[in-house]
Amino acid sequence: MVKNPIVELFLLKRIKMNAAIINIGNEILMGKTINTNLAYLGSELTKLGILAEYAVTIKDEPNAIKQTLQDTWKKYDIVITTGGLGPTEDDLTKAAIANFFGKNQHFDNSIWEHIQKMFAFRNIPIPETNRSQAMVPDDFIPLQNDLGTAPGLLYQEGDYLFFALQGVPSEMKHIFETHIKKIIAKTYPNYKPLHIKTLRTYGIAESRLAELFTLSDLPEGISIAWLPQIGRVDLRFYGTDVRKVEEAADSALNKIHPYVWGYDEESPAEILLSLLLNNFYTLSVAESCTGGLVQKLVTDVPGASNSFLGGVITYTNELKKKILKVSDKVLETKGAVSETCAMQMAEGIKLLTNSTCAISITGIAGPDGGTEKKPVGTVCFGFIAAEKHWSEKQFFTGDREIVRIKAAEFAILTLIKYLQGRYN
Amino acid sequence: MVKNPIVELFLLKRIKMNAAIINIGNEILMGKTINTNLAYLGSELTKLGILAEYAVTIKDEPNAIKQTLQDTWKKYDIVITTGGLGPTEDDLTKAAIANFFGKNQHFDNSIWEHIQKMFAFRNIPIPETNRSQAMVPDDFIPLQNDLGTAPGLLYQEGDYLFFALQGVPSEMKHIFETHIKKIIAKTYPNYKPLHIKTLRTYGIAESRLAELFTLSDLPEGISIAWLPQIGRVDLRFYGTDVRKVEEAADSALNKIHPYVWGYDEESPAEILLSLLLNNFYTLSVAESCTGGLVQKLVTDVPGASNSFLGGVITYTNELKKKILKVSDKVLETKGAVSETCAMQMAEGIKLLTNSTCAISITGIAGPDGGTEKKPVGTVCFGFIAAEKHWSEKQFFTGDREIVRIKAAEFAILTLIKYLQGRYN
Repeated sequence: MVKNPIVELFLLKRIKMNAAIINIGNEILMGKTINTNLAYLGSELTKLGILAEYAVTIKDEPNAIKQTLQDTWKKYDIVITTGGLGPTEDDLTKAAIANFFGKNQHFDNSIWEHIQKMFAFRNIPIPETNRSQAMVPDDFIPLQNDLGTAPGLLYQEGDYLFFALQGVPSEMKHIFETHIKKIIAKTYPNYKPLHIKTLRTYGIAESRLAELFTLSDLPEGISIAWLPQIGRVDLRFYGTDVRKVEEAADSALNKIHPYVWGYDEESPAEILLSLLLNNFYTLSVAESCTGGLVQKLVTDVPGASNSFLGGVITYTNELKKKILKVSDKVLETKGAVSETCAMQMAEGIKLLTNSTCAISITGIAGPDGGTEKKPVGTVCFGFIAAEKHWSEKQFFTGDREIVRIKAAEFAILTLIKYLQGRYN
Repeated sequence: MVKNPIVELFLLKRIKMNAAIINIGNEILMGKTINTNLAYLGSELTKLGILAEYAVTIKDEPNAIKQTLQDTWKKYDIVITTGGLGPTEDDLTKAAIANFFGKNQHFDNSIWEHIQKMFAFRNIPIPETNRSQAMVPDDFIPLQNDLGTAPGLLYQEGDYLFFALQGVPSEMKHIFETHIKKIIAKTYPNYKPLHIKTLRTYGIAESRLAELFTLSDLPEGISIAWLPQIGRVDLRFYGTDVRKVEEAADSALNKIHPYVWGYDEESPAEILLSLLLNNFYTLSVAESCTGGLVQKLVTDVPGASNSFLGGVITYTNELKKKILKVSDKVLETKGAVSETCAMQMAEGIKLLTNSTCAISITGIAGPDGGTEKKPVGTVCFGFIAAEKHWSEKQFFTGDREIVRIKAAEFAILTLIKYLQGRYN
């Protein structure tokens, strides 16, 4: 295993295997594309017990590619590039890679056949530029791409692995899943992956968590990280000893039980859906200011239809009255952004859909529409969980997008808390 | 201006001013947080005519920070770090920065007063750990943060600028907007920003665009980039001469007019909403498989309520019948995923909301629910634009998330195309 003095590990000093990720693309540097590839690779490598210690984004330019390969190859166990394998003129990556490793390129007939097949399936002629995707540097192994035309590439020297992957996220993930995991497992058969346990908290500040959990209190071999999310914090424990990690997380849970709503990677919507399913409950949702975000989050989850029936987005008072039977009097005296209106919206959508549970949201996401009494960020909620009906009012800070996210998550997390029997 | 041979510009070789962005945070490397800060800074700097030539993500660890500063300070005109200014133990950034620049730190009373004020407003006691946020390296200028406790930091030597910013996106953006833009303008008064024109296309492949537009055809001083999005491609022209950029984009538009749906940064939903407003049309939406995504995208736009009335998510056949008046016969003979059902859904939501336009979507997003005749990715659409009613059927590739995004965008882009008078 490699030791690089520059990147000596602080938090994760017990992880022995490391990787460097090189994202190639002007569009990332120019802010046109968000680098979700790094997030995916960082997360998947962490699960394998490999730390992406170094990640760099560079222009699709031969000298930049060559310099970055010099900085990383054989200094990290695994080096992964993404991007630059497409057919267009700005993709010079493969030539720069072949050049760095001192290899010529050859035309690979089986890749060309695969490309022809992909185009035939789509029933469109092959542009001449796609021929370059069938070129492979000598001694490199192409990794078949079932989702696109360009294969991934592998080059190995001893235990050092180099992978060139696509920039398109779905193709890159496909190559990682179907090829790279196996290659890593084969190359490092004795490697012990890292165990991670995450406590997901809501309603407690990062600085308060930092006071409760200090690094020095943790058992040998266990590390901790606070990961602030929008409006909440995740608390992550990790180490190679499964039992020790679980014990540290359990002991932390005792200290902050009221603030923990879930574990590990599950989204709030996933947890809500499994609580509903366990209780044989169904859900409907009536949204105003969040404009469908709650239902989008719920239906992001495969199988949401087991518990989620549907809902409405009532962006006008007329629709609140017509579909949800909100009363004229409430709209006139309390206004659309009121707990009373929210409660009527929840009752209306429950009645319409015949669900057992209901969530409603009405508020002012901004940037306009705020008043002194009801500033931007004011959001009212109605909740129904079988026999229990209640409403809440919150003031959220942030811009339109942040207020909408905080409101949607508050709604989901509040119903979770109730169904977990932890609502006062 | 700096010339770094390693990062010699290929596409953007006429941009003279450059920047390096250093994102500090284990959570980015571990894939827990997506690096949206890089996207924001890259995009904002590009608008100022400054190219972020180099972006690196490193651990929150003193040696890594020091090494990266050595690699970038005075090699780029502007160096920006994000992250590591919070109060928790893993934030050692400021000390590492002070150390690199050879500065001691002092306690800044005015920052401490600001921190006290922020906590008083939230009515919570100040954790002792927050005191560290009032420490400032000598000769650094604190940049007031109205949204949080930690200030940004500026250090300047001649024309070289160093900024240390927060990791929290909203705070980082706030400091960039209120302080950094002004500081850059003051430091480089004669600098000529880059002009960018983007043609947004749909329905034409990246490789086909590459054949139509070759770098050698472009006038001197103009560059081009293809930016693949999910299911579509943006075509970007840039240079410092506004007239030349506009001419190049206009001449490109002539070649690919049927595929262009918009320009620059506007989202499909923004364009749809302004077309609706210009026509005095209103919109309602009935969604099944997209589960609220279309309405979420529409209501992401401030002022959506000028044209968007509301809609429903009917995740069950019962709700399709009850709310949208889809007929039993259609559900039995054609099924919920059929053009006939989609048309009835659109007519149902139009009737319920009394809108002039309507969109409906019903399909199979997967991973389950596909059949031989209706595989995962089959999506049917109903459209109404005043007197015109029509339906469409599409087959989308990709996982659940991708199918849902493609379906929602197809719906919005198809209505755009019709309202632009370009639908056949």
